[in-house]
Order: sequence, then C-alpha cells, then structure tokens
Amino acid sequence: MDLSNVIHPNQLHGLSIQQLEHIANQIRQKHLQTVAATGGHLGPGLGVVELTLALYQTLDLNRDKVIWDVGHQAYAHKLITGRYHHFHTLRQKAGIAGYLKRSESQFDHFGAGHASTSISAALGMAMARDLKREQHKVVAVIGDGALTGGMALEAINHVGHLPHTNLLVVLNDNEMSISPNVGAIARYLNKMRLSPPMRFLRNLKCLTVPKVGAVFEELGFTYMGPVNGHNLTELIDSFKAAHRQNGPVLVHVATTKGKGYAIAEQDPINYHAQASFNLTTGRKNSVQTPAPPSYSKVFATTLVKLAETNPNIIGITAAMATGTGLNQLQEKLPKQYIDVGIAEQHAVTLAAGLACEGMRPVVAIYSTFLQRAYDQIFHDICLQKLPVFFCLDRAGIVGADGPTHQGIYDIAYLRCFPNMVLMAPKDEAELQRMIVTGLNYTAGPIAVRYPRGTGYGTPLMTTEWESLKIGKGEVLQHGNDVMLVGYGSMVYPAMQAAALLSEHGIQATVINARFVKPLDIALIAPLAQKIGWVVTLEEGCLMGGFGSAVLEALLDLNITVPVTRMGIPDTLVDHGTIDEAKAGLGLTAPQIADQILSMVNDSSPTLTPSTIRS
Amino acid sequence: MDLSNVIHPNQLHGLSIQQLEHIANQIRQKHLQTVAATGGHLGPGLGVVELTLALYQTLDLNRDKVIWDVGHQAYAHKLITGRYHHFHTLRQKAGIAGYLKRSESQFDHFGAGHASTSISAALGMAMARDLKREQHKVVAVIGDGALTGGMALEAINHVGHLPHTNLLVVLNDNEMSISPNVGAIARYLNKMRLSPPMRFLRNLKCLTVPKVGAVFEELGFTYMGPVNGHNLTELIDSFKAAHRQNGPVLVHVATTKGKGYAIAEQDPINYHAQASFNLTTGRKNSVQTPAPPSYSKVFATTLVKLAETNPNIIGITAAMATGTGLNQLQEKLPKQYIDVGIAEQHAVTLAAGLACEGMRPVVAIYSTFLQRAYDQIFHDICLQKLPVFFCLDRAGIVGADGPTHQGIYDIAYLRCFPNMVLMAPKDEAELQRMIVTGLNYTAGPIAVRYPRGTGYGTPLMTTEWESLKIGKGEVLQHGNDVMLVGYGSMVYPAMQAAALLSEHGIQATVINARFVKPLDIALIAPLAQKIGWVVTLEEGCLMGGFGSAVLEALLDLNITVPVTRMGIPDTLVDHGTIDEAKAGLGLTAPQIADQILSMVNDSSPTLTPSTIRS
Repeated sequence: MDLSNVIHPNQLHGLSIQQLEHIANQIRQKHLQTVAATGGHLGPGLGVVELTLALYQTLDLNRDKVIWDVGHQAYAHKLITGRYHHFHTLRQKAGIAGYLKRSESQFDHFGAGHASTSISAALGMAMARDLKREQHKVVAVIGDGALTGGMALEAINHVGHLPHTNLLVVLNDNEMSISPNVGAIARYLNKMRLSPPMRFLRNLKCLTVPKVGAVFEELGFTYMGPVNGHNLTELIDSFKAAHRQNGPVLVHVATTKGKGYAIAEQDPINYHAQASFNLTTGRKNSVQTPAPPSYSKVFATTLVKLAETNPNIIGITAAMATGTGLNQLQEKLPKQYIDVGIAEQHAVTLAAGLACEGMRPVVAIYSTFLQRAYDQIFHDICLQKLPVFFCLDRAGIVGADGPTHQGIYDIAYLRCFPNMVLMAPKDEAELQRMIVTGLNYTAGPIAVRYPRGTGYGTPLMTTEWESLKIGKGEVLQHGNDVMLVGYGSMVYPAMQAAALLSEHGIQATVINARFVKPLDIALIAPLAQKIGWVVTLEEGCLMGGFGSAVLEALLDLNITVPVTRMGIPDTLVDHGTIDEAKAGLGLTAPQIADQILSMVNDSSPTLTPSTIRS
Repeated sequence: MDLSNVIHPNQLHGLSIQQLEHIANQIRQKHLQTVAATGGHLGPGLGVVELTLALYQTLDLNRDKVIWDVGHQAYAHKLITGRYHHFHTLRQKAGIAGYLKRSESQFDHFGAGHASTSISAALGMAMARDLKREQHKVVAVIGDGALTGGMALEAINHVGHLPHTNLLVVLNDNEMSISPNVGAIARYLNKMRLSPPMRFLRNLKCLTVPKVGAVFEELGFTYMGPVNGHNLTELIDSFKAAHRQNGPVLVHVATTKGKGYAIAEQDPINYHAQASFNLTTGRKNSVQTPAPPSYSKVFATTLVKLAETNPNIIGITAAMATGTGLNQLQEKLPKQYIDVGIAEQHAVTLAAGLACEGMRPVVAIYSTFLQRAYDQIFHDICLQKLPVFFCLDRAGIVGADGPTHQGIYDIAYLRCFPNMVLMAPKDEAELQRMIVTGLNYTAGPIAVRYPRGTGYGTPLMTTEWESLKIGKGEVLQHGNDVMLVGYGSMVYPAMQAAALLSEHGIQATVINARFVKPLDIALIAPLAQKIGWVVTLEEGCLMGGFGSAVLEALLDLNITVPVTRMGIPDTLVDHGTIDEAKAGLGLTAPQIADQILSMVNDSSPTLTPSTIRS
C-alpha cells in the first residue's frame, strides 16, 4: 500500500503495523516536502501522524466522525482523505486550505482555525446522533494548548456530566501551544506524562488508571493514558479499548512536536509553522535583499525600549509570544511579560485588574483572536474606562491562513463600544508613535491595529518619543477633484492611487485619518464639503467599519456629499497571498485609481466598488 | 453595634460572634425590606451574609481588596461599606446600583454584572501588588455557577501555575446559577459537600484536606473546605487559616441561596431576583390589570408549539432557563432542551455541532451575554454558514440592571459578520412570525432580537405559521414630508410619532424595516429619494447600527438625502427604569416628534438628536 493510492481512510483497515509505519513515513515525507516548498504548519502535524493512522484504523470513516481542533495538525488527515494529489497546492490560492474546511472534504466534519472548539462541536454531533438514534462514533482531537481555552473547559464540564453520551476526546499532549504550554493543567498533564506508562492488556474491558487521571475521572471522564503517541500498537490498543467504553472517555496521548524531523524536534517553537525553507538545513528560503522589519517586530522593539524605563508596562500574550513579537519582552524584561496560554478572555480581564492598580498593561493579540475576548473588552475594560492598551497584530488580510484568521472585523466590532479609542498607523514609523501614544493615554482603553508583514522601510525613531494628538488626522496632499481618506494600511495605497490619478489630471486630497474613534471630523468635514466627493479606504469590513464612521459623522453634520467606501465587502476572504486577496478585492493602488477614474468618466460617482464587482 | 452605624467594614473588627449575628440579622432585614420595595436580587445576597461578615472581619479593608464576581450577591458588602442610608434607592435612577461599580465606592474594586470575571481581575491586582512589592491580600469571591464559565477556568489554570502569588479564591457554592447548576464541576462540588465536614483546629498551620479537593489541589490550589457558610465561627477560622497559607488558596463555602427567608430558600429559582413583592406572602405586588405577555413568554410558547411537531428543534440556554422562557421547553419537551450552564461559548459551538447533523438549534441568549460567544458566532457559525437560530432576548434598554446588561450593541456587532441574517419584530405577533421564519430558514445563521418586557397585546397567532420573506420590510403608512424607518421595538414609537407629527401638518411615511441584514433597500431607496429626508429609529447603538446600515445602503446607491439617525449615542446607559432611560435618550414618541418638528422649524434637518442633546 502506497500513500498515493489512499483515497479513503478506510483503506487503512487491515494494514499491518509495518504497513502503517510505511504510510507514516510517506506522510512525513510529503508533509515536509510540501511545507518546505509552500510554507505552512510543521511541528503540529508531524507529531500526530501515528495518532491519526491509529485512530483511523479503529474507525469506520463512512460513519464515524473525527473533529480536529484548530486543524493545523490535520495534514496527515488530509493526505489520507483524498487530498494527496492536490496537497502541493497547500495554503495557495484555490488550493488546499491550511486548516480544515467543511467545503473541502466530506471528512472535514467541522472547520476550524481557532483553538478550543472541537469538544463543543463534537458534543453537538454526539447529541444529534443520540437524538436520531444513530450509532456512529464521534471523536474530538484536541491539543494540550487548546485545552487551556475556556471554551474547551466549558465543554469538558458539560460532557463530563453526560454519562450516557459516548464521546471520545483524544488529548494530543505535546506540551506546547506554539510556545511551551503554560498553566496548572499543563503542569498536571506533565506530571501524568512522567508517571509510569500505562500497561496495555489487549481485550481487557477497562483500562482506566484512576490515580493518574484523577482530575478527568472526577470530572466524569474515563481516563486512559498516558499513551506513547508514536507507538502504533499502543495507540491502536488504546483507541480500541476506548471505543469499548461507554460515556465520555479521554485518551491522553503523549506526542513530540515535529516528530521525525530532527530540526523541528529540537526547535519546536520556530518550526511550529514555517515559510518555505531548505529541508536539509532547515533555513528559510529568504529573499536576499534585506526586507524592512515586520510590524510585529517594530511593535516589540519599541515596546521593549519603552518598558525598559517604565516598569509599570506589562506585556500580555495569549500563547502568541513569537507571533506578536512579545518574546523580545520575555527575553529582556521577563518580569514585565505574561503568557496566559490560549486564554484571551482571561488575558483581557487580567489586564483590567493590572490597570486598576496603576500598571500599564499592553495586550498584544491578533485581530482575529481578540474576537475571543469580546465581552471582556466591553464589560471589564470599556465600561470601567480602564487604561488598557490593545495592540492588534494581523489586522487586515492575513493571506495563507485564510478566512478563519482574517483580521477584518475589529474596526466594526470595537467601534461600537463607548470609551474606546481606535487608531491605525500608515507605516511602521507611525506605529512607533502610536505605541507611545497608547502608553501615554491613561484616560481609558485605546487600541492600535497594524497589518501582517513588513512595513515600507520608513526610518524608525530612536529618540523622539512623542505622542500623537488623540483623534487628529493629517492631510498628506491637497487636490480639488476627489478626497481620499485612508485608514492605517490603506493610506499609502491612497497616496499611490492619488499619484496615478494625477497622471490623468485628477487632483486628489489625501488624508491619513489615524483615528477612527474619535474621528477627526473637524478636519474631514470642511474638505468633504469643499471637494464634494469622498472616497474612504480601509483594510476592514465595509459593514460598520471606517467608511461608515465617516458617513455617520458627515450625515450627522448634514453634509450629504457622495461617499464611495472601499474596503472589504460582506463576504469571506479565502486563503492565498495577501497581494492576491487585495487584488481580488480591488484594493491595490492601480485598482483604486481605476475605479475612481471610471466613476469620473461615468460623470458621476454613482458606483461603489461592490456594485462594480457584482 | 448597629448596622446603621457601620460606615467602614473595619468596624467589624473585634465584634463577637453574637454581635456579628446581630449585624447579619439586620443586613437580612434591610436586604429583604429593600428588595421587597424596589425589586432586585434576593437569593444570592441572602446566602452570603455570614460569608461577607466573616471574610471582612479577617481583612483590613483599608488595604485588602475583595473582588466579587457578578456583584448581584454583594448587597451585604454594600450595606457595610457606607451605603446603608442610601440603600432604599437600590436599582433606581441615580440610586445604588444592583451590581458593583468602581465609581460607587472605594470598596468596589472591580465592577461586574456578567459572571466569571473575578479571578482574572483579582489575579491582575495580585500581580500588580507583587510587582509593586506591596503586601495586602486579594480575594475573589465566585459562585459555583460562575465557575462553569470558561474564563473563570482559564483564570484557575493561570493562578494554579503561580505558587508564589498569594491569592484567595472563595468559592460560594450554593449549587445554583439562577437554576440548579449543571455540569461535571457542579457534580464534583456536590460530592465534596456531601463529604464529612472539615474539622477545624484553631491555629493549626495547614487545614488542607487533600482527598476532598483533589481536583483543585492538582491544579495548584490549597483547598480548604467544605465550610458551613452560615456558621460564623467556622467561616472566620477558615479564612484566618487561608490567610496563613502561601500561594493560591481556595476556600469552598457551602451556602444556601435565600438563607433566612424561608420562602426564598424553598423556591430559590424564582427568588433569585424579584420585582417588588409582599414580604409576608412572597407574592409579587403585581398590577391588577392583566398585562400582555412578555416577549420572552411569547418566544417560549411559540417555540414549544413548533417544537412539538418538529423533534429536530433543540433549545439551548446558558443558565437562563427562566429568563429566556426556555423552562417551558424544559418542562414540556425535556429531550429538546439543553442547559449548558454559564458557558455561552460552548452553547454556540454546541449548536454548530447540532446544526451540522441536521438539527435546528435555537440559541436563546440575552443580547448582552451573546457578547461572550462572539468569536464562536463568527468562526463556528457564520464562517461555515450553519443554520443556527439565535434568539436575543433583552435586546435594547434593560432598565434596572444597568450598563453591564444593556443589550444595545448586537446590531453593530453581528451585522459585520458575513452570512448572518438579522431581524427584529415590531410587536409580539411579529415575533411569532420571526420565530417561524428563523426556524424555516436553513441557508445559514439567522438572529432575532426582541426587547425586555411586555408587548402591545397584539393578537397572537394560533394557527397561521407563515414565514416572512427574508430581507423584506413593510410600509405602514405613506406621507410625503419625512420618512421614518423603524427597526424592531422602535416601529411603534415611529408610528406614534407620525401621528403626533400629523397633528402639526407633517405627513410621514413609516416603514417597519423588519430586517437590518439583508436590508430592504429596494423598498427604502426610492421612497428616500422621493421624500428627501430619512429618519432612522433603533433601540441600539448608533455607531455601526441600524441607521448606519441605512446610510451605507443609500450612499452605495449614491442617494445623498439627509438622514437623521435616532438611537443610543456613544455613551453608557445607566440603571433606572426602561422608560426613564428611553426618555433620557430622547427615544419616546413625543420626543421623536418634537425633534423632527424642531428640525422642520429650523427649515432644514441639520440637527441630529445627539447634537441636540449635547
């Protein structure tokens, strides 16, 4: 049996351990070769190859359902469920997604991308099964990192209370989220991993070892483990034993992140995910010209610099030390750094507590993950007007991670909360000033959003740490034909579009709004009235976003000029490169210029980007 | 010592048990008398009188900080922290708040209203204390209900990993949220309550009973308990012992909800909170005229009716069976009812799992609490376009519960997510049709919002279960001077305002929008253009809300007529009656008419409600 021939996971049935090991090797090879070429997640998937094969050998995948948490570890699953021959398109436009997606395969029973959802979804499916009097198995596979997310614990609490609901939770314990896992549960799991391994006796009815898994047992689960996650025989025996149990069962599998690729095993943080790299050396296939630093790096460097002289600054991450750049703070000022694990809700309210006591908490969370702490932002921060500084990385189009990770809703979802100040820099130098601004602002909460990737190479500040004035934008150029109001990452494209328009004799005023809340309507309104046509530009959803803020403010002053809003329409944005996505949305500078020109040529600006496209 | 003389909790120091019992009686009396007159929370507060007095006797409240979860049980706390003489103003406009509020007292260290936040906030304060090298104690008091919220479990996971951080968690275990608590943790706590009571030996250094609290011990806490929550001596000894411990300590206190008021002890669900009532009989001081049924009741009755013939309908609540009316479903069709505990995130993704398998999940959550499941709505429901029906009760102004509970952001925060359909009924009969519509709509997620309180007494359907057309509004009356577009609860006020305007010779068109997404712009646009002035009306935030949706849609068609948006400006709405709040916001029919008239008299509609008010 060759991996390339596997188009249905049931083909694994009846394979010997040796045959499965052969498939495992082929999966690792394909996985490594693909990710080395395309970039993608590495360590998580390599760690669960045997787990996947063993689990699937014990299931009938025509009926049974496996729900993978997050989905970034489900590459082996993809390779044995009919996607082998397309796998080289991984994370590329119109190619195989980097996470799970219901539309991609009948075996992707539940899409994911964010952590901690699998047990809840699996329980829903198990309950539906029981209501329909069906018999199939439902399995959730969740990592120890994802288990620290409150929602997974809510689900455990519910499942453990349902002794008659058959549900298998496979705990993939690799002792990591992206960074080493933190918290009491992680420590407890580690203690169990260090306990003598479970001895397996085939065909025994119950293999529980109550003393080891006491917490899970007390919470209503039959606990089994720890199981060596790279021993197929042990895994298969465990899963078979688990399937014979009634009620909720938890199989605790100890895996090694990056298993089978020594470089990744030794450096699991950096090989959690990788851009394309050289398989032999493990080094990135980086471009030779030195790129400007990423926004994350500028954020982190600036924060560390300021934190050095202000011990009240505390950086908080929810298991994203490397992604947000806060690992810099961790290294240089560990006392001013907190990693709470995958626990965004707790991160935000912890920050509230710190702020109450005069600290300057800086919560660095990706735009998409801040959605996980939405009520806390309102109830614990905005409502109490506490000075917490939110730094939203990956705000805007994120590229290969796709729709689960697009950071395009934050303007709309934060704008509606009272007391919140919202800003976005046009480039990395302005990000620095906004970090200073955020730290100096103590009247209430304030947030800055900045995009994934590198800036423009604008010179960075080293000495002048000056705040921006809250709620003040700037005019970048004057022109009488049209007024472009850009927010954050769309300011440079607005300038570039203005330059292109100028070649066609159209003179544009360009404004860098800087703040969407409070909006600098004192700057915008008179110019809008004078020029008579406003185009707003944002890397965010059009419904309720920056353009709507401009609309609202103008109409509140009874200024009824035409406003063309450019941004992301009411649709999901699929995976692909950031440039591809932006081009698909008409958000490149030439496209912006073309759209404006075509409206000018239609002699009245009646068409919006969305109607042009549809 | 008399309660009326206590203005600082440190006055409790040195009081004898008998003296404390006297204070406890006075607190109960004042609590009961006040709530009988004003309405408010009853059971939770009566259960923690001794807990509060004992805890405060062991603390120095000039330095030590107690963080109360939710805050609805903190009436004893309020009565001994300087609010006794104003307590009769409870939950009334400009009076004492029903929850905790930092602005109300130096002893309210962290405001609350929603559950599960206290441990996170307390940990933030404890960490700040340690960074500042201060020495005071930090205590979180959390109920067993709130402990099922994922965020509290995230916090436990973090605290348990910090052996050098002194933090006391007092678990107020009354076996209830509002309804009996559910889940594995509740069952575990119950098991502990049934174990032999902890024997207290004064001055012993450690009083831990590892076997009983194994789960908490494994998670890094020193567990103490169970403690009889109505025995002052036992409580004081336990807290003193806890204070001598280093690191995280959990004191498990067993309390009785409603303690000291027999009627409430016997019926803790209905006496969790009460409108004003007769102390002797426990009966509500209800108005004699039969009021129309509440929206919650209409929702529940209609849902039960439809669920009787469709076994796929599953109602889900997050510990709000009575509030949402789903207790009706629980009674009549228990198999089609799920209470997940205070676990909104899990509730939503559980619904996603059910929807994947062809069930028709109906998630009934208050508007304000749905904020707690925001990412799940996007990531698990909208992104996968799963047919989950969200029923948002208490959408709009909630009255006495105040700013933590106002349901005014949902239009803005749900509108920005693709695939979501959003609707709101003008009255209770239309709510019925929207329930039918929501259940019949299977193309993706759909939500209906409806207000707290009773409808208009419109005749309810008993037979004609007909769907509304998705995205279609209706014209209620025609007029050429101004066009009022109302959403949900603001449609009747719009009609009433139109009638008042008509008396002044102003003829208004009135539209019932029904849907904000998709918005019936085909209906609105031509009328807007013809009439030339649009007034939008919503019981929701103006930033990004219904009015903004109308603005966006009109401007996208290049219709630049003046639009006056009426709704809730960018400010917190304080507690008081719903009518008082609406009057304060200018949202009553006469106020709406007056504002429109004054704009007409200014000969151009340049003033928006917000500028009028400011």
